[in-house]
Amino acid sequence: MQISEDHVVEVVPQDYSYVFNPYREPIARVKPGDRVTIHTDDAFESRITKKGDLPSRALATAKFLNPQTGPIYVEGAEPGDTLAVRIENIEPTRDFAVSVLIPYFGGLTSTNFTRTLQEPLPERVWIWDLVDGGTNLTNEELGVKLPWEPFLGTLAVAPDLEAITALAPGPFGGNMDVPDVKPGNTVYLPVWNEGALVYTGDCHARQGQGELCGVALEITSKSTVVFDLIKDKAIEWPRIESDDAIMVVGSARPMEDAARIANTELVLWLEQEHGYDRWDAYQLLTQAGGLYVGNMVDTTYSLVASVDKKLLSRSP
Amino acid sequence: MQISEDHVVEVVPQDYSYVFNPYREPIARVKPGDRVTIHTDDAFESRITKKGDLPSRALATAKFLNPQTGPIYVEGAEPGDTLAVRIENIEPTRDFAVSVLIPYFGGLTSTNFTRTLQEPLPERVWIWDLVDGGTNLTNEELGVKLPWEPFLGTLAVAPDLEAITALAPGPFGGNMDVPDVKPGNTVYLPVWNEGALVYTGDCHARQGQGELCGVALEITSKSTVVFDLIKDKAIEWPRIESDDAIMVVGSARPMEDAARIANTELVLWLEQEHGYDRWDAYQLLTQAGGLYVGNMVDTTYSLVASVDKKLLSRSP
Amino acid sequence: MQISEDHVVEVVPQDYSYVFNPYREPIARVKPGDRVTIHTDDAFESRITKKGDLPSRALATAKFLNPQTGPIYVEGAEPGDTLAVRIENIEPTRDFAVSVLIPYFGGLTSTNFTRTLQEPLPERVWIWDLVDGGTNLTNEELGVKLPWEPFLGTLAVAPDLEAITALAPGPFGGNMDVPDVKPGNTVYLPVWNEGALVYTGDCHARQGQGELCGVALEITSKSTVVFDLIKDKAIEWPRIESDDAIMVVGSARPMEDAARIANTELVLWLEQEHGYDRWDAYQLLTQAGGLYVGNMVDTTYSLVASVDKKLLSRSP
Amino acid sequence: MQISEDHVVEVVPQDYSYVFNPYREPIARVKPGDRVTIHTDDAFESRITKKGDLPSRALATAKFLNPQTGPIYVEGAEPGDTLAVRIENIEPTRDFAVSVLIPYFGGLTSTNFTRTLQEPLPERVWIWDLVDGGTNLTNEELGVKLPWEPFLGTLAVAPDLEAITALAPGPFGGNMDVPDVKPGNTVYLPVWNEGALVYTGDCHARQGQGELCGVALEITSKSTVVFDLIKDKAIEWPRIESDDAIMVVGSARPMEDAARIANTELVLWLEQEHGYDRWDAYQLLTQAGGLYVGNMVDTTYSLVASVDKKLLSRSP
Repeated sequence: MQISEDHVVEVVPQDYSYVFNPYREPIARVKPGDRVTIHTDDAFESRITKKGDLPSRALATAKFLNPQTGPIYVEGAEPGDTLAVRIENIEPTRDFAVSVLIPYFGGLTSTNFTRTLQEPLPERVWIWDLVDGGTNLTNEELGVKLPWEPFLGTLAVAPDLEAITALAPGPFGGNMDVPDVKPGNTVYLPVWNEGALVYTGDCHARQGQGELCGVALEITSKSTVVFDLIKDKAIEWPRIESDDAIMVVGSARPMEDAARIANTELVLWLEQEHGYDRWDAYQLLTQAGGLYVGNMVDTTYSLVASVDKKLLSRSP
Repeated sequence: MQISEDHVVEVVPQDYSYVFNPYREPIARVKPGDRVTIHTDDAFESRITKKGDLPSRALATAKFLNPQTGPIYVEGAEPGDTLAVRIENIEPTRDFAVSVLIPYFGGLTSTNFTRTLQEPLPERVWIWDLVDGGTNLTNEELGVKLPWEPFLGTLAVAPDLEAITALAPGPFGGNMDVPDVKPGNTVYLPVWNEGALVYTGDCHARQGQGELCGVALEITSKSTVVFDLIKDKAIEWPRIESDDAIMVVGSARPMEDAARIANTELVLWLEQEHGYDRWDAYQLLTQAGGLYVGNMVDTTYSLVASVDKKLLSRSP
Repeated sequence: MQISEDHVVEVVPQDYSYVFNPYREPIARVKPGDRVTIHTDDAFESRITKKGDLPSRALATAKFLNPQTGPIYVEGAEPGDTLAVRIENIEPTRDFAVSVLIPYFGGLTSTNFTRTLQEPLPERVWIWDLVDGGTNLTNEELGVKLPWEPFLGTLAVAPDLEAITALAPGPFGGNMDVPDVKPGNTVYLPVWNEGALVYTGDCHARQGQGELCGVALEITSKSTVVFDLIKDKAIEWPRIESDDAIMVVGSARPMEDAARIANTELVLWLEQEHGYDRWDAYQLLTQAGGLYVGNMVDTTYSLVASVDKKLLSRSP
Repeated sequence: MQISEDHVVEVVPQDYSYVFNPYREPIARVKPGDRVTIHTDDAFESRITKKGDLPSRALATAKFLNPQTGPIYVEGAEPGDTLAVRIENIEPTRDFAVSVLIPYFGGLTSTNFTRTLQEPLPERVWIWDLVDGGTNLTNEELGVKLPWEPFLGTLAVAPDLEAITALAPGPFGGNMDVPDVKPGNTVYLPVWNEGALVYTGDCHARQGQGELCGVALEITSKSTVVFDLIKDKAIEWPRIESDDAIMVVGSARPMEDAARIANTELVLWLEQEHGYDRWDAYQLLTQAGGLYVGNMVDTTYSLVASVDKKLLSRSP
């Protein structure tokens, strides 16, 4: 693939999608190698911008959340291919990020899925200001400073036949909330539709592992990515490649099923593309694999299994 | 606490315990501040030492696994205290480590807990040699070299009233298989019995996150620790402190329950001892917490929630 | 509602839907009170009809499974209403039922969701003949006779915004595989779209609780139902009413979350419509509630919480 | 086995055990065939007997709950045998039963295992009076009458090596809270210790499936059982036989693992003792098996898989 330095496509949505939808008309068409800059709103449609914007009021008229920009049609993409998304840059388009406690949503409360008869946690809004020339974020209640480490909370292709809520992660990528979907890394997704039909949104200024309360540091942003295609190669779950590691994201409930998916896929990847015997690959990950929680709050949980690239070159 | 530089206690077991047992007679008595060197066997009672030692034969006469050295009676420890275990050093007592595939045990197979009607995976033994002056391990089938990063797979106090299999992690610590139980770090455990009654064993030369196939790089070893007591302070789940971070280990099934335990305890720790408002602590972990899988193979899964110590000093 | 004895609508699909889809054009329009007879194919598009039709061959060209008849537009149905579906009759349209073992599908094997590295179970087909004037089924390998107790494996309204695979149960009903969705009972579903947009299919001659191997006694059939509307009353999860009991179906993973949903909804139903104090309702279900597994094999598990109607009339 | 009509042993405990413990001295020795009447306290040591006895006060000084009568030594029982416990009768020893809401305990609240940061549910006590000559129970707040259908909440043998809390169900039986552990039925348990070492307690006047709030209708009682031995036959999980059905109880978390255990064991039982091919047994349970939730509140969940005895006699 050759990146077209002079061919920059800017995608500014007129409206948003709340599902990863194979039936929606593309809002842009791009070529592999184009540098594509995508504007996204935050997960709350920018309805929460100050401490007093409690969700029960600010979101009262929002029927759906997590607006997505898309779909973007990638020319040449066909079912059975793999789409590579190289993330080059994420730029904030406002000078603060927001996080909130939403009733019955998050990791340390009962939820719509894990129902109880208890009262919800209190509502709360935190505004984090971008400071130090955009390199840090700070919140006055907490009194701490955290580095700007942005990533795409949501990156998806349209599923095969289904139209799935933008709150869900899955084999199509989606709302994975995995901090490794970040500038410098490449995300690989299966292609089920002509043009792949890419959606993205839910940009985060940063996030801990697990996205504990359910809401990271939500920002509006423009992100620059470059697409590439691996023709006639089908993958089953999202993969990520960084300078140092290869990773698989598995999303499922209960959480151990997500861990099983991510690790099984990584074993098979090592077997199929890196010359490992299957059981030796299983052994390698046992002794040297990484396994962290991306989110423990979404419709399914996302876990990331990884292994250092140095271990792909063997001297048997 | 003052460490008694000249007071070194060496604990060499005559036999082993296969339960974390409040009823077993102590095999040693030590004082807070003593430097205590503890000899441990490997998880298979050293029955597997070469490639041909397949578990179905080598372990056929082993009624129980994971032999523990203990209990060690820590003078002055009383119910309601917290025991601090500073791990100073882990030294191998042989020049190789072993890992195996055991039928119906591990993360990517059905098991005694997650039963199916499928056939088991094949049995397999890997011998990893300690090389480069003990700084690395290498296995000929895999053809890779991995650094020596030893830790205690098992570190426990006797439970209150119960005697629990040495294969189990829990509030008492136990078979957590968490790589952060390592030299340089301090592990905090609740005390339910006079003398705390410490057990340890299952030393690992290293391990990936998740301990995927269920068996890390198992070694015989001697480990040096120093105990200390925090009087009249009860904790509910194991805590770990490193130079850089504070952590809580939660163990449960399904895996999300382990994540909930670890993070809830860490939120309450920040609230009770570090001046954080409860909801601000929840927010802090959302944006800056760590959450990795220690084991996804034992009787319950162990997850580690953590936060950087730098974030404990705030400037509100 | 008045049932129009003379107004019978027969719905014979020209093709099938493999998603519960709000965007698909209705194939029939009916009024509340119409007696509607719906023809359905079996879950395998009738591709498996004899012992030799092993899934790996018979289903090789089937891109999707579980074909649905629909959507049926119910006049007057609007978002915020509840749709009542009175099931009057299920009639087989062939003289046998079929069940199979499909690789990596079912309750006692690893699956696409609960991944392992094990080999699949063997493929196997069972043909069950309808005998004794259609009152029993018998299979020659098993040598047992089981009563004809048919029900709708799948009964759904279109979701709000999403188009979801016909293999999934959920708040919209769907592939619940719950034996109580049977003649004589009424199923209540939330309405999110104009016309409700009803889908049904996957008829079962009978099924045990749990649908253990994942495939019940699959039949082609015609089913007769009568729709009714409860205007301006929103429910959150499917409800069932029989002569003797009221029930709620919760679908989720892990299975305890399905149990929590079903029971929480039933507590709130008792509180909101039957005069029970919330905690007394909780108490009642503790001492007198039913809780069985509908399916332990689908994309999410379906559990049924119930209580005897006699306990709705109290004498406090 | 011959039941000794004239040999009745009455077991009246001097004190209670709060663990299923292989190390505790037997409190009675009986022979197979003896009719053994066992007195048990209720789960709260009779500390809660009226509406005002809120758990936070009434149980404040109770370090442990669920007192067990035992162990009872059954002569001739050896490791590798199966113990049959025929339950003949359960008689109340007071004229009321009690249920309560305990903070952070039960099926529709967060708990010690499923932790959240929410407030607990309110405390509440219900007293149910035995009426109609002991055939019914009634509670004035609820205003309903429920039949007396007593069973043993807890029935266990001592585990192998471990001493496990009396709150836990498991392969040893224990706190299964399964309504089929009732008069007329026979429970089969594995034997790991000389004398089997039987514990029982936690008698319930009745209970719904799931034991939703965590506390059934708790009573003090005397129960009459007859023990028998099946020599040299080892089982792995508790089995129950009624006049009509055979059943297996699986206990695990997540709940699907309990369902997998119960059904796998039942498939293997049909294969090993009833002449079924393994896959035909799997098929039989798919179409005709029962699967209900015993408890969704204890340390692990208990599910009951069953099949009608009529289906054990086949005519192939």
